[in-house]
Amino acid sequence: MHITAALEELSQLPGLRFSVAHSDRDAHAQSETYFAPCPPEAVTWPQNTQQVSDILQICHRHGCPVVAWGAGTSLEGNALARHGGVMLDFRDMDQVLAVHAEDMDVVVQPGILRQALNEELRATGLFFPVDPGANASLGGMASTRASGTTTVRYGSMAENVKALEVVLADGRIIRTGSRAAKSAAGLDLTRLMLGAEGTLGLITELTLKLHGQPEAEAAATCSFDALEDAVNAVITTIQSGIPMARIEFVDAATTRAFNAWAGVELPEKPHLMVEFHGSDQAVAEQSQRFGDIVADFNGADFKWAVKTEERSALWAMRHNAYYACLALQKGASALVTDICVPISNLAQAVEETQRDIAASDLNGPILGHVGDGNFHAILLIDPERPETLQVAKALAGRMAERALRLGGTITGEHGIGMGKTGYMEAEHGAGWDVMGQIKKALDPKGILNPGKLYRERDAG
Amino acid sequence: MHITAALEELSQLPGLRFSVAHSDRDAHAQSETYFAPCPPEAVTWPQNTQQVSDILQICHRHGCPVVAWGAGTSLEGNALARHGGVMLDFRDMDQVLAVHAEDMDVVVQPGILRQALNEELRATGLFFPVDPGANASLGGMASTRASGTTTVRYGSMAENVKALEVVLADGRIIRTGSRAAKSAAGLDLTRLMLGAEGTLGLITELTLKLHGQPEAEAAATCSFDALEDAVNAVITTIQSGIPMARIEFVDAATTRAFNAWAGVELPEKPHLMVEFHGSDQAVAEQSQRFGDIVADFNGADFKWAVKTEERSALWAMRHNAYYACLALQKGASALVTDICVPISNLAQAVEETQRDIAASDLNGPILGHVGDGNFHAILLIDPERPETLQVAKALAGRMAERALRLGGTITGEHGIGMGKTGYMEAEHGAGWDVMGQIKKALDPKGILNPGKLYRERDAG
Repeated sequence: MHITAALEELSQLPGLRFSVAHSDRDAHAQSETYFAPCPPEAVTWPQNTQQVSDILQICHRHGCPVVAWGAGTSLEGNALARHGGVMLDFRDMDQVLAVHAEDMDVVVQPGILRQALNEELRATGLFFPVDPGANASLGGMASTRASGTTTVRYGSMAENVKALEVVLADGRIIRTGSRAAKSAAGLDLTRLMLGAEGTLGLITELTLKLHGQPEAEAAATCSFDALEDAVNAVITTIQSGIPMARIEFVDAATTRAFNAWAGVELPEKPHLMVEFHGSDQAVAEQSQRFGDIVADFNGADFKWAVKTEERSALWAMRHNAYYACLALQKGASALVTDICVPISNLAQAVEETQRDIAASDLNGPILGHVGDGNFHAILLIDPERPETLQVAKALAGRMAERALRLGGTITGEHGIGMGKTGYMEAEHGAGWDVMGQIKKALDPKGILNPGKLYRERDAG
Repeated sequence: MHITAALEELSQLPGLRFSVAHSDRDAHAQSETYFAPCPPEAVTWPQNTQQVSDILQICHRHGCPVVAWGAGTSLEGNALARHGGVMLDFRDMDQVLAVHAEDMDVVVQPGILRQALNEELRATGLFFPVDPGANASLGGMASTRASGTTTVRYGSMAENVKALEVVLADGRIIRTGSRAAKSAAGLDLTRLMLGAEGTLGLITELTLKLHGQPEAEAAATCSFDALEDAVNAVITTIQSGIPMARIEFVDAATTRAFNAWAGVELPEKPHLMVEFHGSDQAVAEQSQRFGDIVADFNGADFKWAVKTEERSALWAMRHNAYYACLALQKGASALVTDICVPISNLAQAVEETQRDIAASDLNGPILGHVGDGNFHAILLIDPERPETLQVAKALAGRMAERALRLGGTITGEHGIGMGKTGYMEAEHGAGWDVMGQIKKALDPKGILNPGKLYRERDAG
C-alpha cells in the first residue's frame, strides 16, 4: 500500500517523467546475467537534482523502495528492484557540466556513458581512464566502485573521483569532497558512497580526475603454452615495476570464443593482451622489458597493434569477451565470478579454479585484469537445465572461499548486488555489522536499493 | 564519576601498563602548536589488540573518553584529550608484523614511526612513500589521512592503505579491506577510518602499500625573483605531466629561516625544492624538462643534490622548516594553516594570503606541497601577547574562506582536531550532519576522542 500511495504522489509531481507502463517496467527488470526479472512498479526519468530530491522525499515519507538505473550493464543484478518500488533512470541526466583542463578534472551528471565522456574530452588532450569494458554510466561505475583493464596503471573509481553530489534517502542534498587534489577535512564521504551501490544515497553529480592522453600507445597480444607461464609472466612484470597501462589474461577457451566471435585466428592457447602508455622512448623501453619477460616464460606469437584502429579492434574484442563466451553455447546465460587476490597467489588461484571448472560439466572460460590479481570465470548456464545454475553457484562459492583463503576479496569490481551477500559474512565478519549500522543511520526506513549489500535485518 | 570508575577498573586489568602519574599525564597533554595543555586523567600503553579491546569495553561501559596517541606530532591538537579521560599511547605496539615483498605490502602496528618503518624496509628494495615531514606514527598518519612532500607522485594515506584492524568504541574488533589490490565488496570501511581522527575506532594494525625504490633519484633547489613566478612554474610543471616525486615551495621568509637554522646560504628569495625518481634516463629527461620550465619563469641558482647525503640534508632542512620558522622569533608558538586548492587557483591563493599576512603585524612564512595545491602559513604567535593569537586566528579564518571560495578545502593534510571545527559547516554543509550520523551510529556514547570533528551535539 505504501508503494501505491508513493506512486500516486509521484504521478502528480509537475514536470516529472513517470511511467507505470509494462514496457517501461520490463525494460528495467533484466540484468545482463542469470537473475530472474524483477520489474519495478514504476519508472521515472529525473531531469535534475531537485527532481531526485523531490522523488526521494515522497518515497521516504511512504517507505517506498527506490533503485537507481544507469546503463544496466552490471553483472550482479546490482540495479534490479528486488523489492519493487520506483526505478529512477538517470538516462536524461547525462551532461558534461564543466571541464577544468588546467586542473585535470571534469564535472558530469551520473547518466553519462563512459565512451560518450571520452568522446567529449578528446579535444582537451585528457581522458578518463577507468574502463570496465561495458559502456557503463559513470554513476553506476561510481556506485559499484568499478575498475577494469586500465586499473593496474590508473586506479579504480576509488582513486578517480574527487567529489560528488548525493541525494540522501530523505531527500537532503549533500556535496562531498572538493576539486582540490586532497583533503583531510573529516570523514571521507566520497569514498563511502563509492561502492555503496545506491544504498546510502543517489549520486547526482561527479567530479572526476582526468589524465593526460599519452604521447604514445602500443598494444600487443602474445600466447603461452601453459596457463601458469602466462600468469607467472604477469606476476614478474608487475613485480619488476613496469608501468603497464593494461595487462589482461585470457585462457584458451576465451581465445576460442574470440576466434568465433571476432573472426580472428589466434592460436587456441592462453594469451596476454597488453598496452603501454608513455613517451615514445618510454613505450619502447617498457615494450622491450616486457618482451624479455615473455621470452623467459616461453611466450610466442607476439602481435603488435600500434595504429589507433588496430588497438581499438583489439580492445573491442576484449570488451566483448562476455558476449563471445556466451556465444560458445547456444542460448546460454552466465554466472560471472570476480575474485581478486594478492598477486603472489594469483597462479594458485587461477590454477585451482581451472581444475575445479574442468571437473564440472560446465563451460567456464577464465579471463581477467591479472595485473590487479583480479580474474573472472564466465560460468555458462543452460536455462533449460536449472541444475547447471546450481553447479555454477557451487563453483562460484568455492572461488569466493578460495579468494578469502588466499588473502583476497570475493569481488574485485562487480560489487555485491543480488549474487554475493551470502559471502559478506565470510569476508567482513563483524565489519559487516558496521556497514549495517551505517546503512541504518543514513537510511533508517531502508528505502534505497533494499535487499542488497547488508544483512537481511539491515538491508531494508 | 564515570571516569573515576573506569580508571579504577583499568588499574586492575591484569598485565596492563597504566599510570595516573602527573609526569605521564603531562607528557601527553601538549601539542606541537598553540593549544593550551589538556592532560588526560590517566595514560595506558597497550601491548596488543586484545588489551585495546579490553580498555574500550571498560571505557564504553562507563562512558569514559578515550584518546589515542601516536608520536604527538599533529598540528591541530588532534590527539589532545579535550574532555579528559584515558590516553591510549600506542608506543609499545610498533612492530612490523609481515613484509610481503612480492605483493609490495607490509603489515605494521600503529605505533611504528615512519622513519623506523623505512629503515626496516631498506633491504627489500621497497619503501613507504607518504612523508608528512615529522617522524609521525603510522596510526596517526592514517587517522589524519596524512600526506606530504611525496603525495604529488605517490598519493596520500588514502591511496596507500590496503587494510586495517580497528577496535570499535564498544570493544568489537573488525578487519577492513584485504591484501588484494582492489575490492568492490561493500562499504569502504578502510577509507572511512582514514581521517576519522580516532573518533570512529582505534586502528590496531595497518596493511600498507609499498613502492619500489627508484633506480635513480635527484633533488634540486632553485630560486625565483617573484613568488608568482615560482608558483606559476609549479603549475606549468604539473600541467605538463612531468611525474615529479616532490615539488615544494618555500617563500623568502622561510629561506631566511633555513639560512639561520641549517647554516646554508640560500639567496633570500622564493625557492622551489624538487626531486625526481625513475630510471637514470627518466630522471635525466624529467630534470631537463623541469629545467626548461624554470628558465621560462626566470628561475636561477639551480643547486643539484644527487648523492644520498646531499639529498638527505636537503629534505632534513625542509622537514625542519617548522622549527626553523619558530626560531625566527624568540619564544614563539605558532598557528599552522593548511589550505589546499585546485592548482589553477594556487597563485591567487598564495598571493592573497601573503598580502593578508603582510598587512598584519605577524611573521608568517609560507611554504607547501604546491604540486597538490596545498600550502601552509606558519603564523608566529607571541605567548606574552595574546592578541597575536587572535590576529593569527583571523588570518587563518580568511585563509579557510579563501580556500572554499577557490574550490578547495580547509585542510589538505593536518586534519580538523581542535582548530578547525569552526569551518566544517562552511566546507560540508549538510554533509557535516551525515558525518555526525555516522559518529552516533558507531560511537553512541561519544567516548572516542570527544569534542572533535563533529557538531557539538554529535561529538560526544
